[in-house]
Amino acid sequence: MKEARGIQYQDRREAPIGVFDSGVGGLTVVREILRQLPAEGITYFGDTARVPYGSKSRETIVRYSRQIIRFLMTRGVKAIVVACNTVSAYALEELRPEVEVPIIGVVKPGAKMAASVTRNGKIGVIGTEGTIGSGIYTSFLRELRPDIQVLGKACPLFVPLAEEGWLEGEVPMLVAKSYLTKLRHSGIDTLILGCTHYPLLRPAIAEVMGPEVTLVNPAYETAVSLRSLLQEQRLDKQGAEEGKAPLCEFFVSDAAEWFNRFAGRILPTGIANTRQIPIEEY
Amino acid sequence: MKEARGIQYQDRREAPIGVFDSGVGGLTVVREILRQLPAEGITYFGDTARVPYGSKSRETIVRYSRQIIRFLMTRGVKAIVVACNTVSAYALEELRPEVEVPIIGVVKPGAKMAASVTRNGKIGVIGTEGTIGSGIYTSFLRELRPDIQVLGKACPLFVPLAEEGWLEGEVPMLVAKSYLTKLRHSGIDTLILGCTHYPLLRPAIAEVMGPEVTLVNPAYETAVSLRSLLQEQRLDKQGAEEGKAPLCEFFVSDAAEWFNRFAGRILPTGIANTRQIPIEEY
Repeated sequence: MKEARGIQYQDRREAPIGVFDSGVGGLTVVREILRQLPAEGITYFGDTARVPYGSKSRETIVRYSRQIIRFLMTRGVKAIVVACNTVSAYALEELRPEVEVPIIGVVKPGAKMAASVTRNGKIGVIGTEGTIGSGIYTSFLRELRPDIQVLGKACPLFVPLAEEGWLEGEVPMLVAKSYLTKLRHSGIDTLILGCTHYPLLRPAIAEVMGPEVTLVNPAYETAVSLRSLLQEQRLDKQGAEEGKAPLCEFFVSDAAEWFNRFAGRILPTGIANTRQIPIEEY
Repeated sequence: MKEARGIQYQDRREAPIGVFDSGVGGLTVVREILRQLPAEGITYFGDTARVPYGSKSRETIVRYSRQIIRFLMTRGVKAIVVACNTVSAYALEELRPEVEVPIIGVVKPGAKMAASVTRNGKIGVIGTEGTIGSGIYTSFLRELRPDIQVLGKACPLFVPLAEEGWLEGEVPMLVAKSYLTKLRHSGIDTLILGCTHYPLLRPAIAEVMGPEVTLVNPAYETAVSLRSLLQEQRLDKQGAEEGKAPLCEFFVSDAAEWFNRFAGRILPTGIANTRQIPIEEY
């Protein structure tokens, strides 16, 4: 393991926010943070060499996440956003005591939002096998409202579909129908997009679910929670210089060029300076 | 890295054959070896923690393959079969000088077979982005017959479809149509299934391509080549004890249980004793 020496900021408020995901999905969370906290810098890590996480065991996901957090700490981040539902489900609570900066996931904010928008108390959750199998959305939702009914459905093909860029047309529609038709007729009025890739397939998901079901994107509420957290802990950046965009840095474990191309579809501005790092050494 | 100490066989002919793949796809090669060389034992490694390889860079694939070969050598294997087209394409020639036992891939045997069955000299190849991008099938085919025309097409969704067990029905048919319709009308008379997962989707691929196109499964020809190689080098096992099945051992880098379930669909006999090992330490 590399020694955790690295960048240090004299004024911690100036430090970037660390964001990580198993691959490109977490960029939908970065997009929300850029919208809602435009002054903040971001250091993103996407584990493109070891994606997907959704079918991996808890033990492996904890080990990978620990390496990524060590790497982000060498970049001097002031807070960490786990922009991956599977990691939030499997590893966040175990890792929290080990991390010296505030750390938040996407599951709790997503659950909070869903509990507040449902009218009939019936909520659907879609995600990877890991996230659905963990039952974590159900736990958080029941903490908020014990009478809530939760229906979960793993949709493993959504991630490769999104990463292949197959976001619209016949194939995503048919895959969405195969996964979601039963859920559509179950009486839920709210559906949590419990994987950061899924907002990319929103058109197909929305068409299958129909207009009476509210789709919840946890990325939005995560950015809201992040803002509160930074303010509470006096870590929010004080006044961005006008006309000067904050620094966003991107790191991956493999294939930086492909990542740049994909990021261009999600983020408002293209990126070109993604660097590949040997994450296994952290 | 772990020291490469391990099992040693006094009679090298008794040692198992090492077979590896990025995940479960290589089991289609194991199936062929079991059919054609029923006396031989097999030690299989599936890199289920780091699958898929198809979208990873050459450098990463070489590094991963080196770790796997080191692990197989600790198991005392007498020969190694690279049951993965992407590794065969990207890493085999670079690794060959480093390996003390004979090593063969699936690409050369597959190309040989396709060159011998084509009537009009027009051959299609489907595989991962890595395999197609490498142009390796084209190189081998042209070495065999310089006038051969090769048309390649990457089909990235086939691997997750196969691993999801979605082998028949509307979705695989539609995905196959999306990928293959152009190839079907291109005039090829032979199609190489250039990824070890693809034979699992053979029904859908065959239906789209029609009866006039011969589908070549490199796994078959790889087992033929392996038999010749073992005989030439006097490594073939001498006479199996009657009624006693040879030992097949399975190792993975993650989620052994899921692997066992999946293997049951491919191999003639179910397996239950798959072990998970920390491949990064090799």
